[in-house]
Amino acid sequence: MTDTVVRVALGERSYPIHIGAGLMERGALFAPHLASRRAAIVTNETVAPLYGAQLEDTLRAAGAEPFTVVLPDGESFKTLDSLNRVFDALLAANADRATVIVALGGGVVGDIAGFAAATFQRGVPYVQVPTTLLAQVDSSVGGKTAVNHPLGKNMIGAFHQPRAVIADTRTLRSLPARELGAGLAEVVKHGVIRDAAFFEWIEREALSLRRADDAALAHAIRRSCEIKAQVVAADERESGERALLNFGHTFGHAIESGLGYGEWLHGEAVAAGMVLAARYSVRRANLPAPVAERIATVLERLELPVKAPRMTSQRWLEFMARDKKNRGGHITLILLEALGRAVIAKDASARDLEEFLASVES
Amino acid sequence: MTDTVVRVALGERSYPIHIGAGLMERGALFAPHLASRRAAIVTNETVAPLYGAQLEDTLRAAGAEPFTVVLPDGESFKTLDSLNRVFDALLAANADRATVIVALGGGVVGDIAGFAAATFQRGVPYVQVPTTLLAQVDSSVGGKTAVNHPLGKNMIGAFHQPRAVIADTRTLRSLPARELGAGLAEVVKHGVIRDAAFFEWIEREALSLRRADDAALAHAIRRSCEIKAQVVAADERESGERALLNFGHTFGHAIESGLGYGEWLHGEAVAAGMVLAARYSVRRANLPAPVAERIATVLERLELPVKAPRMTSQRWLEFMARDKKNRGGHITLILLEALGRAVIAKDASARDLEEFLASVES
Repeated sequence: MTDTVVRVALGERSYPIHIGAGLMERGALFAPHLASRRAAIVTNETVAPLYGAQLEDTLRAAGAEPFTVVLPDGESFKTLDSLNRVFDALLAANADRATVIVALGGGVVGDIAGFAAATFQRGVPYVQVPTTLLAQVDSSVGGKTAVNHPLGKNMIGAFHQPRAVIADTRTLRSLPARELGAGLAEVVKHGVIRDAAFFEWIEREALSLRRADDAALAHAIRRSCEIKAQVVAADERESGERALLNFGHTFGHAIESGLGYGEWLHGEAVAAGMVLAARYSVRRANLPAPVAERIATVLERLELPVKAPRMTSQRWLEFMARDKKNRGGHITLILLEALGRAVIAKDASARDLEEFLASVES
Repeated sequence: MTDTVVRVALGERSYPIHIGAGLMERGALFAPHLASRRAAIVTNETVAPLYGAQLEDTLRAAGAEPFTVVLPDGESFKTLDSLNRVFDALLAANADRATVIVALGGGVVGDIAGFAAATFQRGVPYVQVPTTLLAQVDSSVGGKTAVNHPLGKNMIGAFHQPRAVIADTRTLRSLPARELGAGLAEVVKHGVIRDAAFFEWIEREALSLRRADDAALAHAIRRSCEIKAQVVAADERESGERALLNFGHTFGHAIESGLGYGEWLHGEAVAAGMVLAARYSVRRANLPAPVAERIATVLERLELPVKAPRMTSQRWLEFMARDKKNRGGHITLILLEALGRAVIAKDASARDLEEFLASVES
């Protein structure tokens, strides 16, 4: 079994991301994090039947006494209510501060389980076992945890770094095609904001990636984690550079909010959001127009949506004004100056944005 | 206006505690923390009519645009639901990451508002304006924030340091006698665990303290904050020494859980809890029996309960087993070796404890 390790360098909160096929069976990867023997697996209805028993076996073999909390599946359940279900289960099992929480599932499970770990008894350790491409390339780095609020996505959360991420690429074989695509959107984003050569590799390998070719995916995961780890290490709490990772996300979050979460996958909203952000960069950051179209083209080849749903420009602005990056009423956007070079624009003019959005609407 | 400052030394998270009469009117104390002009005052139904308008005026004079969130009053409302009401109000007001949360009230308001600040958009700044003695001598130091869960007190929370604490001693004039007593219980605790001379001062000044004498209270607050700040600075995340501050609290929390929260004030439960902890220290830590009785005596002179409500020893153990200090199934207790010298006992025997509790029951 191959096992590539990407190290996320965050001082005493540093941790390894293990990437490889079959890692979920490797007790030795889990053993160092089972300080006490208590382990709570947090997962969902879809993932539990696929990998729940296997992970419980691995943890048991590593000396733990695991128990499992199963949540409903879907972004619409990323709520304070689901979080509370995790707390109920932890307390019913007499979990204490040494109990490790193991997140088994995609980004939603990771976000809820991570936030539960951040706040249960003011913080317990957790390990991520991401089972979607999106979670492997995105949530695996950065320590962001959150739940949604009816008035905005990820509005309630914490920064809480995992002790380790164990990304078993074999889990991607069971991944629905749309979810694979959603993960690829974030892979594209990492190339776009930071690494033109990686973006070009994605252009060449689009078909292999779309076909879930093992080697292509493994490379995409590794390089994505490396890029994201580099950005996060420079700015753990998102006060500066880290905001670059939000390229396409302010538009994307507005799409998700406008649709009431759950219609589109997060990565799909980000794909259409990146196309808008790239086109707006042509207008505001002198990005050559052909670059914006290359971004749209590669996303289309990855079978991702590149056209946002229709919303009035007022509605766009209303949702974009709620973005967490905003400070003191100004809208902050990530723009692109060139392929591989994203910048933070802190003072996007609402009127200019409205004009732009009205123009793409028609 | 006198203004004593105790500095809590926590590196980049250091902050001042201002103690004095009339400080709530001093805009200059708030101004440095109003980075953006947005300020959300979180308070409760009891405190809002007393000080809400005054604090809004002060903040407005300091250049802010404050809005106020009013919660129901009482420990029974220290829940995820109340927390969610704060999030609702923040989002309805388009609060962003630069919005400062100002907690105006006692420990419950401080805990909820602080936890909201820790988790709203993954963390916003907050300032405490404690209006009870308990909050001024206890919650003002340490950065602990939390809400309760039906199965245990403070089970969900975070460490989040305020930017400043502004303790206006004038607010204590409106404080009900029982609440004054509850604050004095924690003052006694600080002497008991760390400073025999301060304990002796409390013995001498018990009557002045009980009568809410201004000078006596000001000294008690300052010395309490200093002792707690010293302990917290040495152990911000409660991995060691900080646990000493929990003297009397494991028994106290069991009392509160057993009564379903809200019957007794936290400080009252801690008072009766300290008496049990002191008597158990005679049994397990060679504390001279007369010292345990001096502790009971001073608490009685402060009109605090020194006798816990009746519970079976099984019930005691059930609640004590849920304490956050416990690791891997062992009950951790803070015991006293001498006046001013508390120690952590990590391996209290459940059987011995049960025997002790059965003996005090009768």
